[in-house]
Amino acid sequence: MTYTYLGPAGTFTEAALMQVPGVEAAERVPSTSVNTALDKVRSGAADFAMVPIENSVEGGVSATLDAIATGESLQIVREVLVPITFVLVAREGITSLEQVRTVSTHGHAYAQTRHWCEANLPGHDFLPASSTAAGALGLLDPENHYDAAICAPLVAERNHLNILRRGIEDTAGAVTRFVLVSKPGRIPAPTGNDKTTVVVPLPEDHPGALMDLLDQFAARGVNLSRIESRPTGEALGSYFFSVDAEGHINEARMADALAGLHRISPGVRFLGSYPSVGRSPNAGASVARHNTDEAFAQAAAWVAQLKAHLG
Amino acid sequence: MTYTYLGPAGTFTEAALMQVPGVEAAERVPSTSVNTALDKVRSGAADFAMVPIENSVEGGVSATLDAIATGESLQIVREVLVPITFVLVAREGITSLEQVRTVSTHGHAYAQTRHWCEANLPGHDFLPASSTAAGALGLLDPENHYDAAICAPLVAERNHLNILRRGIEDTAGAVTRFVLVSKPGRIPAPTGNDKTTVVVPLPEDHPGALMDLLDQFAARGVNLSRIESRPTGEALGSYFFSVDAEGHINEARMADALAGLHRISPGVRFLGSYPSVGRSPNAGASVARHNTDEAFAQAAAWVAQLKAHLG
Amino acid sequence: MTYTYLGPAGTFTEAALMQVPGVEAAERVPSTSVNTALDKVRSGAADFAMVPIENSVEGGVSATLDAIATGESLQIVREVLVPITFVLVAREGITSLEQVRTVSTHGHAYAQTRHWCEANLPGHDFLPASSTAAGALGLLDPENHYDAAICAPLVAERNHLNILRRGIEDTAGAVTRFVLVSKPGRIPAPTGNDKTTVVVPLPEDHPGALMDLLDQFAARGVNLSRIESRPTGEALGSYFFSVDAEGHINEARMADALAGLHRISPGVRFLGSYPSVGRSPNAGASVARHNTDEAFAQAAAWVAQLKAHLG
Amino acid sequence: MTYTYLGPAGTFTEAALMQVPGVEAAERVPSTSVNTALDKVRSGAADFAMVPIENSVEGGVSATLDAIATGESLQIVREVLVPITFVLVAREGITSLEQVRTVSTHGHAYAQTRHWCEANLPGHDFLPASSTAAGALGLLDPENHYDAAICAPLVAERNHLNILRRGIEDTAGAVTRFVLVSKPGRIPAPTGNDKTTVVVPLPEDHPGALMDLLDQFAARGVNLSRIESRPTGEALGSYFFSVDAEGHINEARMADALAGLHRISPGVRFLGSYPSVGRSPNAGASVARHNTDEAFAQAAAWVAQLKAHLG
Repeated sequence: MTYTYLGPAGTFTEAALMQVPGVEAAERVPSTSVNTALDKVRSGAADFAMVPIENSVEGGVSATLDAIATGESLQIVREVLVPITFVLVAREGITSLEQVRTVSTHGHAYAQTRHWCEANLPGHDFLPASSTAAGALGLLDPENHYDAAICAPLVAERNHLNILRRGIEDTAGAVTRFVLVSKPGRIPAPTGNDKTTVVVPLPEDHPGALMDLLDQFAARGVNLSRIESRPTGEALGSYFFSVDAEGHINEARMADALAGLHRISPGVRFLGSYPSVGRSPNAGASVARHNTDEAFAQAAAWVAQLKAHLG
Repeated sequence: MTYTYLGPAGTFTEAALMQVPGVEAAERVPSTSVNTALDKVRSGAADFAMVPIENSVEGGVSATLDAIATGESLQIVREVLVPITFVLVAREGITSLEQVRTVSTHGHAYAQTRHWCEANLPGHDFLPASSTAAGALGLLDPENHYDAAICAPLVAERNHLNILRRGIEDTAGAVTRFVLVSKPGRIPAPTGNDKTTVVVPLPEDHPGALMDLLDQFAARGVNLSRIESRPTGEALGSYFFSVDAEGHINEARMADALAGLHRISPGVRFLGSYPSVGRSPNAGASVARHNTDEAFAQAAAWVAQLKAHLG
Repeated sequence: MTYTYLGPAGTFTEAALMQVPGVEAAERVPSTSVNTALDKVRSGAADFAMVPIENSVEGGVSATLDAIATGESLQIVREVLVPITFVLVAREGITSLEQVRTVSTHGHAYAQTRHWCEANLPGHDFLPASSTAAGALGLLDPENHYDAAICAPLVAERNHLNILRRGIEDTAGAVTRFVLVSKPGRIPAPTGNDKTTVVVPLPEDHPGALMDLLDQFAARGVNLSRIESRPTGEALGSYFFSVDAEGHINEARMADALAGLHRISPGVRFLGSYPSVGRSPNAGASVARHNTDEAFAQAAAWVAQLKAHLG
Repeated sequence: MTYTYLGPAGTFTEAALMQVPGVEAAERVPSTSVNTALDKVRSGAADFAMVPIENSVEGGVSATLDAIATGESLQIVREVLVPITFVLVAREGITSLEQVRTVSTHGHAYAQTRHWCEANLPGHDFLPASSTAAGALGLLDPENHYDAAICAPLVAERNHLNILRRGIEDTAGAVTRFVLVSKPGRIPAPTGNDKTTVVVPLPEDHPGALMDLLDQFAARGVNLSRIESRPTGEALGSYFFSVDAEGHINEARMADALAGLHRISPGVRFLGSYPSVGRSPNAGASVARHNTDEAFAQAAAWVAQLKAHLG
């Protein structure tokens, strides 16, 4: 098995990948962009790609949303949450915060630690890096002249970097969400706490289409945990929606909602049903009786019995 | 074949019955109430009952709505519209409007001709009758002392009554709607312009249930041509809805809407799909592409194909 | 003060009227039809009219709905519920059920006592009367030849009729709803348990108008306790809706819903806010925070403050 | 006047800024991150900040959405669309595509030109840069060893870089959307083609809240041109929505929709009404009569007149 991920090695995306059971024994190949990673799956060069889909430290979310919305179909088979915690690492010889004059890291990581930096590294300069790992590993290169970097614990520990401080993120408890993507194949079996991801082009000739699309979920009591509109890139004002819904295609209310989406927007793309990780926003909200599999089955049986009397 | 109807003979209900093809050769039995008529069908004493369902001159509409909502199931197999036009008939010896001092008819019929009466029969007295036909035929009974009656053309013509004026209704163009009811059996084949009638108990434990019920139709582009709430009679605040929807159970959007109703209110009662008479309020509004049988079939096929990949 | 009501004297409508405080000392005039009663109010011949609006024994409900939907505006100032219980009264000389051969009453009353009659008066004949009171009082007229009548307790007691049995209704606990109507004037102050009645023409040029109308209530958490579609009588397929909503125009959510109705259907007619009698279907359902007067006031203040910055 | 923008100089964000009338004569200061730029406005160090909000080449969109959703209030006063077109620039001495072995640029820019690169620069290596401008200007630094960079025309022209090819983007016609942000103050006057941006926390204690929020727009015929859910960062499953709606707070339907949002989610943040640039998805869809300012005014007047009769 070959896994690729948005690299370089040592980023939060690799940390996400390392949570996948069995991945330690598999081949792991970094990719320079989300598109590259997904194309490796499409071409068969990799079996799986780990890419960020929500709230990522190193960006790539829009690229992921767009890349899985178009081109050859892909399927999400797993989601992974990674707690976002940063460490400050320094080059050899630096042992205290007072010595740090210049800090390098990815701009998004800097944004999430800036208050700590301003309070603890007064007067420091910031040098953008192309990733948190690139910033950290640059400390090992004598040609670079900065003092410290902000990165994931993974890259610091693996490379035995000099950690000055841990947990320097401004907001405790943040997480980033990643998805493991494969070619379309078997859908993971339902676990009772699953998520279904779809991409739905907004029909341009259908006023009120967005409400009609969302109503397909609402009318069956299916909650949404993420919704984003994205331009299709084909024309100004041409949009698609990327949606995570709570439930599994094996559940009648989800299958019925998907059928409703397909009627309104036949170009809808099913990106997978897979186990949900962590507490969902609506966890504990039990399914109303009229949205259970049993209610759907009884309703279908009733209509079938009525139609048996057709003249 | 035996047909019964809300009598007595000569009312608008009998006029509705006479529109049914082949009924002239069949046995026709008046019933003293809507309940009596429907019970004759339930017991097998009659094959069909003609009863008013909307805007009736002689009442009975509530009784019809309630009677088909409860008890042993019945099925509507045809609807009939009857133009509401009244004649003024007089007892022997009366030849001009000036001679008319007292007029008898059903209270509803009087309400629909009152402006004409006030303008043309100044100072007249009104004597309520239990039906338009009873008022008219009473003129033949020497024990009665009123001068004229207001009734349907049918009873006047059949009994060779003395017609003083035709078309005395205050509002031209009114119609009453009747339905022909049988035991549940074969559903008439779709004609492309059909109506489906259902009775839906309002679930008490489900806030917003009415909107949810109506949304089952709206979400599939099914128009409603009649909706009425009725108390169930079981408890104060316990309601059911009587609804006419445009379409036939053989059409996918109607079948899907009915399944949705059944999920929300499992006690829903299907009262039939049958040809629609006259122009519907939404006639000419074509079915949106996403609500066609084809769109439903394609959506179902798409979901089935996705589910084939379940692990 | 003069009150009129759907007569004759002794009907359930008069029983409803007698519940109005102070009415015993006022002038009470029966009317032969709902239209006549309402016209007396319009012309000033009466100050108030009591008419049935829901589930009536003697009919008139459609007439009431239609009459208050058109013509000069009227206003509902009170609702009254009357328990529907029937007595069997007999002509002089009849002392046991076995002696009863013929029974007279209004058709609707007969429909509601038929099972009792069949069980207790085997082989009896039914003679329709124009009202329950007319049937009962006819027993005092020696020209009539029937043995018994079914009527409201009121007329039996007031006329010292011979009561053979009380409580002969087939369904215990039924009630009929009446409304007291005046010319438009002062709206009764809110009590916290009120009802608002409106009549809304369905705009013909606006597909989905019914859902849009109902959504005006639903979007503000306003429950409906009655809804009926009625043909306007102007053209086939032209409808209006008669709706009872829970709440008072003095409450922000109701006023906002009414404004929404007016936008969609400018011909909407406000028929009054008045105290609700009896348990409402949704009694005890507290108003959601976002639909309280406070939430409306805060929202209006917020928008006003934003608009103060308009350039 | 001081303007800041997501730098460095020469990026697409600066190209957006240069479209603002009068900006050439003003002070223009690059910021290293979206947060830094917005904080300069909050602190008064800058009057305006130009930041990407949708579909950005250099990232920052999530940072923008999050930064304007929290902290001290800001206001969008203008939107700018920038056509996304890339040029390939080379270091001194490189005159043909065949000589290009290594290319540097921001990862998002590389993703949008990758097909062109693969077709025209076979076997090239990609070196990520922290921005398109940084990659381009790095060509002037003799310490760097890459041959070419992909950047915006602005930075190439301003620095007289050696342009090998223009228009190398894989998708023609793409645009990025930027917004100009100030402290809250005067709202730009309506132009008839405006946009309103709001940030709405999703109330956690309110099932179906997302549909209720969206219905506030739909029920008044207000179209949405962008919608994104974002985690609040406070707790897993805690979300806010960033929404662009078509219309101006000065229009009654928008003001009414905003009031509705405030009732459901009192923490809603108004981020401005400002002229819309370019064709909107719903351009040309005229406002339905019932959503016009006139309809709102008439409805309000009607309700006010009714309430004048309150007892």
